[in-house]
Amino acid sequence: MSDDVSNRSNRLLRALRRQPVDQTPIWLMRQAGRYLPEYRAARARAGSFMDLCRNPELACEVTIQPVRRYALDAAILFSDILTVPDAMGLGLYFVEGEGPRFERPVRDAHAIHGLRAPDPAVALRYVVDTVAKVRRELDGLCPLIGFSGSPWTLATYMIEGQGGHDFRHVKGLLYGDPELLESLLATLTRAVTDYLDAQVEAGAQALMIFDTWGGVLSARDFPRFSRDPMARIIEGLSHRAQVPVIVFTKGGGGWLPALADTGADALGVDWTVSLREARAQVGGRVALQGNLDPQALYAPPARLRAEAQAVLRDFGAGPGHVFNLGHGMLPDIAPEQVATLIEAVQTASRSGN
Amino acid sequence: MSDDVSNRSNRLLRALRRQPVDQTPIWLMRQAGRYLPEYRAARARAGSFMDLCRNPELACEVTIQPVRRYALDAAILFSDILTVPDAMGLGLYFVEGEGPRFERPVRDAHAIHGLRAPDPAVALRYVVDTVAKVRRELDGLCPLIGFSGSPWTLATYMIEGQGGHDFRHVKGLLYGDPELLESLLATLTRAVTDYLDAQVEAGAQALMIFDTWGGVLSARDFPRFSRDPMARIIEGLSHRAQVPVIVFTKGGGGWLPALADTGADALGVDWTVSLREARAQVGGRVALQGNLDPQALYAPPARLRAEAQAVLRDFGAGPGHVFNLGHGMLPDIAPEQVATLIEAVQTASRSGN
Repeated sequence: MSDDVSNRSNRLLRALRRQPVDQTPIWLMRQAGRYLPEYRAARARAGSFMDLCRNPELACEVTIQPVRRYALDAAILFSDILTVPDAMGLGLYFVEGEGPRFERPVRDAHAIHGLRAPDPAVALRYVVDTVAKVRRELDGLCPLIGFSGSPWTLATYMIEGQGGHDFRHVKGLLYGDPELLESLLATLTRAVTDYLDAQVEAGAQALMIFDTWGGVLSARDFPRFSRDPMARIIEGLSHRAQVPVIVFTKGGGGWLPALADTGADALGVDWTVSLREARAQVGGRVALQGNLDPQALYAPPARLRAEAQAVLRDFGAGPGHVFNLGHGMLPDIAPEQVATLIEAVQTASRSGN
Repeated sequence: MSDDVSNRSNRLLRALRRQPVDQTPIWLMRQAGRYLPEYRAARARAGSFMDLCRNPELACEVTIQPVRRYALDAAILFSDILTVPDAMGLGLYFVEGEGPRFERPVRDAHAIHGLRAPDPAVALRYVVDTVAKVRRELDGLCPLIGFSGSPWTLATYMIEGQGGHDFRHVKGLLYGDPELLESLLATLTRAVTDYLDAQVEAGAQALMIFDTWGGVLSARDFPRFSRDPMARIIEGLSHRAQVPVIVFTKGGGGWLPALADTGADALGVDWTVSLREARAQVGGRVALQGNLDPQALYAPPARLRAEAQAVLRDFGAGPGHVFNLGHGMLPDIAPEQVATLIEAVQTASRSGN
């Protein structure tokens, strides 16, 4: 193995633990996706998006596609954040152009008390099989990140029946019967812990918890309804010491100290956050992952490079930075732009510019 | 005039200047709106939403409705944030359930260089007339707040042709030709300054700048493309010393010190911000307006009261707080809930609980 490959295999894990690295590791949220022609071909072979997630052969293929094409420092499992509630029997489906929906949302005590944490070896077998297959096929090229949605995020989708801008039902439950909401969150905390444990046992080397809807909570309610369930998951992981954990609360840039209290190794931050200020607040406790505006990938190459360098400069010298976008890759980005970005990050961070 | 009416007439203006008040003033974003049956009746008489905005008689009526029904401490002009680009000839219209659109978005240098700041006395006469009429009819009952969208927010709608989640065109311009974007922002800065001056001359006693899309900018770009144009407006107002200005950047809770640099008297904050922490950061420079989660108005009355008290406690003792929601009133809130909220805020803040 050459030095370069060796570094690519451990740069991410070292940076997540705030250990020195030769250059800033980079991976990109939704790096496996529609902007890649090879992804679109695999998706066409699979059928629907969930058919692709449920097919370990094809899900493995699309997971690996971006790390074969680009010098990325990590692969991330190709799956959906809502596989757990789907495995609980809610019936996940997708409306083209509108995001996920559930056939059977849960809104009352009877439905909530009837839910059980699924056994991942049975109901989420397809995910576990995909993780094992990806890990084998990567063969040490770079680490594999497993993931789940946060309990609050899963609860939001399960209660609303979809994502979106309203949150009327879940906020109604939060303000009207907070104990019932907490009982749902407790079930989901158990379910997500088991699910992430199963991913680690199948070969995932780092974990990420996506708290997509944490940012709709008030500053007072966030610790109780989203932060604490995530902290309990991290504390409860069977192989905690071996696997670094990244937490990303969308819209949670104002709550970084509270988020560091989850016990996570790293926090994802979006582009509205100054990495310099974030580091001043929590850099002694966690690594930071982010935070280029995904829309900067539409910029002319010279400007894209300048934006990437600005993100690196904003973080500054020293360990503990994982370069990423502040949100998922947009579907119509030109693949050459991604190559330009990765090269810019690697060149600039190696030379210390 | 009774003491109570006298207080109602100056509580807001005193609090915005961080002067002591007998109880925390309260008004609610979108307090004139669909949740009120009397609003729905006026709207039915007017025709479309823009027909209502353009009719000084009816726009005055709906502006005053909530301050007649409730003991609110301010009226806010009933209008739309996009009247200025409409007056520039872009053709504002509304698609039911989808928000505002422009018939003629501006996307190239030719279109942008062709824009002129409209004379409010001509193209926005209907707004000026509404302000004058509201001020007369309020007859000192409570102050009247005028408003505009921020230059960045107006530019976003003008370039995208609508609001929304994508921002591809405006970000494309920002990253691809930032000088052209700045030239558009300069025209809008002139236009908004003239528009707010005209509102003050017609009788507005406080002003609010709604920076609805400021929060989609990166931490690096926000000062240049949204904060600085707002600061230039505030500095350029003809009657600056007489009229307190509130700035509200949606999603800008992480940028409060930068926002205080606009020179505003008060900053609006949403419910993801801790008022205590916000006050620690900027309370010596500006008043704070907010920040109840609008969804708390769905809660049972006892819980709604507790949430209102929690907002007051979060701010703490001392002047400089204007109670409000962290976002606009939702259209299906029960009018009795609004009465419960106002009474809770006034009772608790009078007794210092």
